[in-house]
Amino acid sequence: MIYLDHAAATPVAPKVVKAMKPYFTDDFFNPSAAYLPAKKVASEYEAAKATIAHTIGAKASDLVITAGATEANNLAFTSLTNSGRVLSSQFPPPCSPDGCARRGSPQLRHPSMLLYLETEHDSVRKAAEALGGKAIKVLPSGIIDLNNLKSKITDQTELISVALANNELGTVQPLAEIASIIRETKLNRMKRGVKTQLLLHSDASQALNLLDISVARLGVDLLTINSAKIYGPKGVGALYVSHDAKLHPLVTGGGQEKGLRSGTENVPGVIGFAKAAELAKEHLNYNRKKYKTWRKTLLQELTDYELVNKKHSLDNFIVLCYNGIDAERLVFLLEEKGIYVATGAACAASKGVRSHVLKAIGLNDSQIAGSLRITLGETNTEEQIHKAAKVINEIIKKEQNRIAQIHVTNN
Amino acid sequence: MIYLDHAAATPVAPKVVKAMKPYFTDDFFNPSAAYLPAKKVASEYEAAKATIAHTIGAKASDLVITAGATEANNLAFTSLTNSGRVLSSQFPPPCSPDGCARRGSPQLRHPSMLLYLETEHDSVRKAAEALGGKAIKVLPSGIIDLNNLKSKITDQTELISVALANNELGTVQPLAEIASIIRETKLNRMKRGVKTQLLLHSDASQALNLLDISVARLGVDLLTINSAKIYGPKGVGALYVSHDAKLHPLVTGGGQEKGLRSGTENVPGVIGFAKAAELAKEHLNYNRKKYKTWRKTLLQELTDYELVNKKHSLDNFIVLCYNGIDAERLVFLLEEKGIYVATGAACAASKGVRSHVLKAIGLNDSQIAGSLRITLGETNTEEQIHKAAKVINEIIKKEQNRIAQIHVTNN
Repeated sequence: MIYLDHAAATPVAPKVVKAMKPYFTDDFFNPSAAYLPAKKVASEYEAAKATIAHTIGAKASDLVITAGATEANNLAFTSLTNSGRVLSSQFPPPCSPDGCARRGSPQLRHPSMLLYLETEHDSVRKAAEALGGKAIKVLPSGIIDLNNLKSKITDQTELISVALANNELGTVQPLAEIASIIRETKLNRMKRGVKTQLLLHSDASQALNLLDISVARLGVDLLTINSAKIYGPKGVGALYVSHDAKLHPLVTGGGQEKGLRSGTENVPGVIGFAKAAELAKEHLNYNRKKYKTWRKTLLQELTDYELVNKKHSLDNFIVLCYNGIDAERLVFLLEEKGIYVATGAACAASKGVRSHVLKAIGLNDSQIAGSLRITLGETNTEEQIHKAAKVINEIIKKEQNRIAQIHVTNN
Repeated sequence: MIYLDHAAATPVAPKVVKAMKPYFTDDFFNPSAAYLPAKKVASEYEAAKATIAHTIGAKASDLVITAGATEANNLAFTSLTNSGRVLSSQFPPPCSPDGCARRGSPQLRHPSMLLYLETEHDSVRKAAEALGGKAIKVLPSGIIDLNNLKSKITDQTELISVALANNELGTVQPLAEIASIIRETKLNRMKRGVKTQLLLHSDASQALNLLDISVARLGVDLLTINSAKIYGPKGVGALYVSHDAKLHPLVTGGGQEKGLRSGTENVPGVIGFAKAAELAKEHLNYNRKKYKTWRKTLLQELTDYELVNKKHSLDNFIVLCYNGIDAERLVFLLEEKGIYVATGAACAASKGVRSHVLKAIGLNDSQIAGSLRITLGETNTEEQIHKAAKVINEIIKKEQNRIAQIHVTNN
């Protein structure tokens, strides 16, 4: 097997499995229980949160543990003022210059309250769309159009959501520049006595093991991180929350995570996440260098492709376009040879919808249909890279011949 | 160690750990990916859901997998009509004969829309309180007061939430009788042309491995089940949803779980939950009989107690009251002897609040302060039961002597 889809899922690292194991069987106690072994588990849970927090330059108390990035992204949006869940049926349907909301559907006071990048993962985009937020454009490079962002910020804007690295292209966004625009806007607002909050949220799910992340340096108020993409267990994520952001819980109950996320703590999950975050930080430079070399090797050895994500991308992302060839067919042909790649985000791919990301960067339908996402990772070896290039080239050649044959037959 | 707090947490069974393991390392694929190994994982995930569903007499497609019982309980409440999340700030604050809601806080159209038992776990009670629902009274036995229920049902009532077994007392509620009241109410409504839905939700977190559960026999529309309480992994639960109940997602994104709960599937968690549910069903009768015997043994060998949960309780629940003695002190004294018991629900205990459950069944403050919850489980042996009885008796005697001594000194 040559697995080249590490952006979709990563295996749990053996060291992570080992770290989690005692918490399934021996240290299984409920962290809220009163006796010593339970309190020991509670303090180890807190220590694990601190480990995770340290990898992004934060403290344990800044993190809300969630069941994954999707929940963390949704939770981030509760920082919009007065975003408590209400039953809308008791209210008249809200109307604005942009039209009327459906009965029972959530809506913002003003669409510019929430701005999000048009290439965001569905867990940000769908949540933002449901609220009626406004999309910020990207340039053909996949990078945020900062002028478009500036033009969309109004005095009503409360939250801007831009993923640190895109899940289909690996494109890394200039968050520090966005943060600087936000700072200027806040200064300007202050002068005019406008008191509306302005927060920056970023989904860093894809980046925790590929970039050196510091919440201070990025200038974010809210940051989503994910265990499942960094060789940790599935079903665990976290939201970093700065002092400026006030959240509302999506679920209420026992009051865990300072009341922001009730439910018995997933102790083994968080222990595993912490180990994975620690390992990610430890291997960061080594892995980046390795992926950079392999990326170069692949691009040198592959033929007939057009490179989609040319710059500012994570070192392990290679997005190729084979114009005129059906990439979904390629996925199946490669699968027969034991090589696993993706055509886009796993969740989008399974629903057979065209990638909104590739469309946003200006690719036409034929280019989108011919696009392949390769994401390198810790399961790979240099030998696999050469083998993959060879097999992909062979399959592309065969496909091109097959298509040419069809053309000849048809004419 | 003699662990007598299985209602707070259970260790993951070795067979469950074994079942989960390959899904951490080998079968780690994203179930939404297009290649065969990922599709295999997706189908095994579905099969696991079917296994879980079968243990309650349901189908895989009836279940929404969640991160635990708390989320499942919160999700159940989205079945209230028009309960989509909205930003309330755009609406005037809602007022009713019962007063005005706080700005930004969710509120029901009418308090009787949602009825819940006053002894519910916080994940139901806090969520219901936040919505402004109405509490149904229990009798001193801890059983629902059916007359009180009947008196509270109005034509506005849409959802009734009653836990199958209480988490502090183990009291088993007569759900089939409640379902029959609901059926009568619906018949009566139909005759009068009242079209409001009327659903029954039950949190069965504590009961899946102690009662033979069938959603049809119970007559529930929504049922919460939990992996962490039945020797499965923490951080996984599920909500059974009948065709009559229409839910709204708490989180949106990739559209997993039929759009009701987005986020990459926690495959190992669900595989583990399924194995645990299967084992629970397999050992149900054997375990019930065993716990029943041990319960009897304990009650025979213990001295000076008053039994709190006299009848209709799960076989593994023993709630004792040592009037005049501080049970929190007992927990610590027992801990020194390696015996772990609880004073109430773990989450309530950690916050130092008096149990609302013990209060609801009519215990006074001194009785509540002297109450101990013992919950038997698979980590126990008969020898442990005798040992525990002996140690508890000794400690009680010592405490009684110490208190008597203080009285003598003070007088």
